[in-house]
Amino acid sequence: MILEIADIHIPPGKNAEFDAAIQRGIETVIARAEGYRAHRIVRGIESPERYILMIWWQTLEDHTVKFRGGPLFAEWRAIVQPFFAAAPSVEHYSLVTASAGAAS
Amino acid sequence: MILEIADIHIPPGKNAEFDAAIQRGIETVIARAEGYRAHRIVRGIESPERYILMIWWQTLEDHTVKFRGGPLFAEWRAIVQPFFAAAPSVEHYSLVTASAGAAS
Repeated sequence: MILEIADIHIPPGKNAEFDAAIQRGIETVIARAEGYRAHRIVRGIESPERYILMIWWQTLEDHTVKFRGGPLFAEWRAIVQPFFAAAPSVEHYSLVTASAGAAS
Repeated sequence: MILEIADIHIPPGKNAEFDAAIQRGIETVIARAEGYRAHRIVRGIESPERYILMIWWQTLEDHTVKFRGGPLFAEWRAIVQPFFAAAPSVEHYSLVTASAGAAS
């Protein structure tokens, strides 16, 4: 399992709309993707227009090849891209260590 | 509960040493801090010298006031700071939404 982390910036004043849109995008599109395992979305306290989207995928290729090269990618972009103030920075990570309570 | 996210860059060739040091820092210092709840450390796949450290704190002040202003901060920095290629970027986040499986 690998972790995708996307660093997303939206324009001021759009938080409520974006919160609803990204949740809808996850539930209606990402959740149907092959290899999708889990997600977490957090919003900045110092930077309220900054969001970190974390998606756990079974393999790197489930995201970079199958999802980005498949039909779901356009559906996802149609929902969330209108809110992007800039192109999100997206990288992938593997686990070094985590506490048992890291779920919370 | 809030999430601290630190974006850490280390010099090339130091991964094994840093992996051991940051785990030791978490277990021997951070775990003793008031308000510490959980942690996760991931290492970049595209950028192997990049680490994302996530720490869940009960409140923002547990990190920014009590931890940074208390005696544990110097202990923590002594363990991890020698590996920093630059000053880490650190911000705090609140949860928007997460799947039940986000623990994995």
